[in-house]
Amino acid sequence: MPRVSEAWLRRILAVLYERRHTTRAEIVRATRLNVASVSQAIRHLLHHGVVQRSGQLRSAVGRKRDELKLNSEAGYFVAVDLEGTRVRFGLTNFLGDVRYRWEVPVAFGRRFDIRIFAKGIEATLANLGARERCRVLAMGVSYSGIMDREGRVTAVNLGWADFPLAEKIRSLVDLPVFYGTESLTKLLAERWLGAARGSNHCVFVTVANGIGCASMNEGHALLGRDGAAGELGHIIIDPSAPDRCNCGRTGCLEAIASSPNIVRQYFEKTGQGRKRVFGEQVIEVFARAREGDAAAVEVIDRAGRYLGLALANLANLLNPELIVLGGDLVHAEDLFLPRIRKELARNVLPKMQASLEVKMSSLGLDIGLVGAASLAFHSALREPALLKKICSAYLEELRSRQSE
Amino acid sequence: MPRVSEAWLRRILAVLYERRHTTRAEIVRATRLNVASVSQAIRHLLHHGVVQRSGQLRSAVGRKRDELKLNSEAGYFVAVDLEGTRVRFGLTNFLGDVRYRWEVPVAFGRRFDIRIFAKGIEATLANLGARERCRVLAMGVSYSGIMDREGRVTAVNLGWADFPLAEKIRSLVDLPVFYGTESLTKLLAERWLGAARGSNHCVFVTVANGIGCASMNEGHALLGRDGAAGELGHIIIDPSAPDRCNCGRTGCLEAIASSPNIVRQYFEKTGQGRKRVFGEQVIEVFARAREGDAAAVEVIDRAGRYLGLALANLANLLNPELIVLGGDLVHAEDLFLPRIRKELARNVLPKMQASLEVKMSSLGLDIGLVGAASLAFHSALREPALLKKICSAYLEELRSRQSE
Repeated sequence: MPRVSEAWLRRILAVLYERRHTTRAEIVRATRLNVASVSQAIRHLLHHGVVQRSGQLRSAVGRKRDELKLNSEAGYFVAVDLEGTRVRFGLTNFLGDVRYRWEVPVAFGRRFDIRIFAKGIEATLANLGARERCRVLAMGVSYSGIMDREGRVTAVNLGWADFPLAEKIRSLVDLPVFYGTESLTKLLAERWLGAARGSNHCVFVTVANGIGCASMNEGHALLGRDGAAGELGHIIIDPSAPDRCNCGRTGCLEAIASSPNIVRQYFEKTGQGRKRVFGEQVIEVFARAREGDAAAVEVIDRAGRYLGLALANLANLLNPELIVLGGDLVHAEDLFLPRIRKELARNVLPKMQASLEVKMSSLGLDIGLVGAASLAFHSALREPALLKKICSAYLEELRSRQSE
Repeated sequence: MPRVSEAWLRRILAVLYERRHTTRAEIVRATRLNVASVSQAIRHLLHHGVVQRSGQLRSAVGRKRDELKLNSEAGYFVAVDLEGTRVRFGLTNFLGDVRYRWEVPVAFGRRFDIRIFAKGIEATLANLGARERCRVLAMGVSYSGIMDREGRVTAVNLGWADFPLAEKIRSLVDLPVFYGTESLTKLLAERWLGAARGSNHCVFVTVANGIGCASMNEGHALLGRDGAAGELGHIIIDPSAPDRCNCGRTGCLEAIASSPNIVRQYFEKTGQGRKRVFGEQVIEVFARAREGDAAAVEVIDRAGRYLGLALANLANLLNPELIVLGGDLVHAEDLFLPRIRKELARNVLPKMQASLEVKMSSLGLDIGLVGAASLAFHSALREPALLKKICSAYLEELRSRQSE
């Protein structure tokens, strides 16, 4: 078998992952590789059992073309979603379909015990036989909060302050682990299966306990120097706003429009300023606003206006074609979408208006797991050792089975 | 000669352009292609005269390695800089070194005559012999203002409103033309020869008649869906600021911190509110501020504070490692740099502070031409027909010379 370039394999596998079913001709178009390279690489992948023929297409002139797909059993990923109110574990096949789930609720703000983490991974992997376990390729972790360069995480919901997550996970599992912010993993999920399918210039915005975003430019995720890009919640949206942010400053978007801050403002306006605030209570503020409660409407007005303004600033900077809104906003499309659209129409420069769409996130509870698995897949492609494993794991198992 | 993949050539030529002198081993590292592919592509490029041996390196163990460089005569580019106060034309060699320049002053706001454009291109090309003219590959144009999708430009300094620039240029020259905003071309120039050398996460900010920026993420220029990204001047930096912007809104950064608006505020504060404002007068406001003129200091304070705030917002969104300041700010490093640094220190999240640097643009008058040529080079690599021309023009000429 002639040598096949890693770069070809990487691009071809990415196209197969994205399209699920495709043909050689489509791969040539999408990767811009030449026909010979694609054919050679596909032969290699078929031989190793990573790609399979899923059918044949016959064209009008009678030529047969193979329809190709990834072998869903060519490898597995562990996906972890450290989201607001529960921690979820999933096992996905090679294509990112979630096969098994295991979850545990989080007591907000109480220190989340890493031993539960070990239990979750164990419970997830227990679904695989010994032979399949060898084909677990990597783990993807979706986190909210802040991770520093040493892998220490600060996340209010989990009660973690500089918690050495990466170090702990290294001691728990012998797998390559890839981390992505909640916004990034959700963007990957939306782009792959949801509202952002086929979009190369898109932004995912999460509004929950915090506010964050992740963006793509020409299909490349915008991560920044330290992988810390997307801190939409901490742009100063109004220098004269009195709202104090968790970060210590005033005027941050998050201090006005995050779920706990919406609740806080509602309590303040209704004389309950001393009540303890929880992000989940935002659902009730939404309900009150729908009933016409003046205080609730006023708070939603303000949050929606500043959110729209922040997204307009973002759009003027990045010129995306799509903004997907997620987090608690999915429970209040009726309240926020019109307010946000109004600010965008008013503030995004005319030349970018025509191509800008805003949609609500459409993926349900699995979005974090799907995104974490997608992150793990794409990250694995970029690691030469893992790419090699992807292209050999299945063949090796077949061989060992035959020799038994 | 075996077939060489276009994708290899593209990446190898980009590395050679960036490093000027390099070795096969360095190209392998930088492109992540395998050794055989690089050797094959280099043989191809040497054969076609696009790459030359510039020397030999001998290692400690006695192995000889060729030092390689691009043949500076393998092709030429026309570069055009439609900057504020004059229009400049340049002819560059294959490496982007400006060989000939021709310029014409602009009467601010008076409609710039496209016939002068034709004259400039002609004057530039007149420096080449007939044979060399065949090797002119493309034209790069650096513009300020706004270009729509049909190539119509609105630029106050040139007196153009929806002026069909692309169409006019198509009728004037039979060359592929690539357009980039002033910020983008300057970013390319700084990254290639100036303050941003070697940086993959950098931003260039221009403050002049308008305010704009261009960014790179992992070495990819952030252009957005319509190539319109980077409208830093039109982010709403203070919703309650009364300053009215050219775009019709209030609160835009540009309405507070662009050169004409700095002048306007100074005039207003000193009872000269009805005087006509020109961007160039900002130099005098800078001088007054240095002399301690209270009104000038106050205006600079305000502009610097908002600029810093806008750059902090940008940094929190994009997590760059470097911000390069250009335009009229290069005349006021002493006034603006401390104010901007203070706002960045106060407002950029701690996790991104350590890796963030701010520098002044260091390239002089040629920056626009150098950037336009760099844009043309990189854009040409992406066009299959031009890549083919790059790889054949010089060889064809050599052959035709030999057969004479």
